[in-house]
Amino acid sequence: MNFFTLKYENNKLVLLDQTLLPREVRYLNLIDYRRVIEAIKMLRVRGAPAIGVAAGYAAVLACAQAKDFDEMMRFLEEIREARPTAVNLAWAIDQMKQIALENREKGLEIIHGLMLEKAMRIHKDDEEMCERMGRNGEELIKDGMTILTHCNAGALATAGIGTALAVIYAAARQGKKIRVYADETRPLLQGARLTTWELMQENIEVTLNTDNMAASLMQQGKIDCIITGADRVTKNFDVVNKIGTYGLAVLAKYHQIPFYVAIPWSTYDPDTPTGKDVVIEMRSPEEVTNWGGVRTAPENVNVYSPAFDMTPHELVTAIITDTEVIYPNKG
Amino acid sequence: MNFFTLKYENNKLVLLDQTLLPREVRYLNLIDYRRVIEAIKMLRVRGAPAIGVAAGYAAVLACAQAKDFDEMMRFLEEIREARPTAVNLAWAIDQMKQIALENREKGLEIIHGLMLEKAMRIHKDDEEMCERMGRNGEELIKDGMTILTHCNAGALATAGIGTALAVIYAAARQGKKIRVYADETRPLLQGARLTTWELMQENIEVTLNTDNMAASLMQQGKIDCIITGADRVTKNFDVVNKIGTYGLAVLAKYHQIPFYVAIPWSTYDPDTPTGKDVVIEMRSPEEVTNWGGVRTAPENVNVYSPAFDMTPHELVTAIITDTEVIYPNKG
Repeated sequence: MNFFTLKYENNKLVLLDQTLLPREVRYLNLIDYRRVIEAIKMLRVRGAPAIGVAAGYAAVLACAQAKDFDEMMRFLEEIREARPTAVNLAWAIDQMKQIALENREKGLEIIHGLMLEKAMRIHKDDEEMCERMGRNGEELIKDGMTILTHCNAGALATAGIGTALAVIYAAARQGKKIRVYADETRPLLQGARLTTWELMQENIEVTLNTDNMAASLMQQGKIDCIITGADRVTKNFDVVNKIGTYGLAVLAKYHQIPFYVAIPWSTYDPDTPTGKDVVIEMRSPEEVTNWGGVRTAPENVNVYSPAFDMTPHELVTAIITDTEVIYPNKG
Repeated sequence: MNFFTLKYENNKLVLLDQTLLPREVRYLNLIDYRRVIEAIKMLRVRGAPAIGVAAGYAAVLACAQAKDFDEMMRFLEEIREARPTAVNLAWAIDQMKQIALENREKGLEIIHGLMLEKAMRIHKDDEEMCERMGRNGEELIKDGMTILTHCNAGALATAGIGTALAVIYAAARQGKKIRVYADETRPLLQGARLTTWELMQENIEVTLNTDNMAASLMQQGKIDCIITGADRVTKNFDVVNKIGTYGLAVLAKYHQIPFYVAIPWSTYDPDTPTGKDVVIEMRSPEEVTNWGGVRTAPENVNVYSPAFDMTPHELVTAIITDTEVIYPNKG
């Protein structure tokens, strides 16, 4: 890849500030776990897997900062609560807590080393997971296909080559000619800002469209399949992902276009029975009513702004994972 | 109404400058026809019916300014060319030219009076058309309904109470409690900037959502019907309207929600057989990639940006007009 999302070196977490893309490519050097929390909350780092990896390193930083075991455990809990919907974040922190609890008697220095080892393992696992997802998914992609994607489920959302975009990168590596349409993904424009940017870095042909143009593209037969990532997949394979995903899945069904979701197994949540059991995070109205510092809607207007929506598994053709491709509606 | 889009009084055209909404409510007092041309070109007044009415008054101003008949006719031609594609504008000016030619011998003062009478007639006709559309449509609306709309098909687009929003205003006048969700309508945000503003002026409960949130609202059973306007309805009742309309219609079908389109008969085009025969205008990439002077997508990214899409009549429950409600898929 011609860029990286995050890496840990010299006791620092080095993080690409995605809020500045595509205008500026700036890497942050973080040594305070609170700044990692801030980065997670402000979406400087985003995407479930990347958040998980960042959280692991945040725990390492927190361990170095804590004056005692109890304080460290409180710091870890703070990190865990940075984004409630992000299952990888909770998962990564729970791993770190377990290491801490199992090694409590050994002291913080030893725990710090064990945590760092674990965080690097999570990072490496994520990279490898992306590669496997790409390989598993690219078998579904034929030479010359045009793929629609939503939000950014790319390298920028992981510590590797992405989830949905891993499939595209893997297909391109096989020499397949792939074209991509990227939904801009309101309100935060991850598609416009991030997906187009990273595909252009990797020389994949990409065209930007507003979310409400996707239906028109499908109507004209311009889309061969849709691939998105997911923030959480529930036990029954319902998909919780960026707002707008559900609408695309309905449109795909209507136009008989395959709808694929690419996830690492860590995004699968067997403890939540169905998508209806997931509480959807609501975002600030200002994300919708302001643009580049300019207010574009009346003061005090009511705003509906869920971060995610829920796509029932009936609308999902296949879920591409790092171990297998699952067809939730077959057999 | 608690605001007006335009009116003529004391030899002036008083025009709400819509480019400043919703941040500032400023009325322009225009006595020079050239300033009306500027207002039309700069979209200070927009919407086919409103442009037609403004053009009629511009002709009256031009007549008062002209030193002789020939100069007046040149002024009228200038107005006619303000927006070459606006069919109502050409239509209004042609009416004025005919009055001028038929009464040439009577002198400019008499012509001025006749033109003013005609301009007020065009204005009044538009108001009445909106009222009739509202009355015809409001019978479809039940007390307590929540209605989703797209773009701005409101009072701001006409000299009356609007097209799609006329139905809502008429229902509210009948004492029906109506709630509205307004799609922000990318790329130009007419929903966020204009529809929310005008509904708030009229104390109609309105909530703003990004276009990609509409599907989630329907999934949750929060939308009872959808009403949009149209830029053109073809002979077979296919609907050409603001990009995003087609996707809403598919989603409405999937969720078994009625999908209504409100138009004056002047929008019906019996000379075009189907929606597929309409050439869709493509807009500038910058409308998608820039906002408020801020670039939100990479330089040189490819952009797909059609102004309109086409909704086949099969997806349209009813077309509400100023004379009748048409059910394109019944008998």
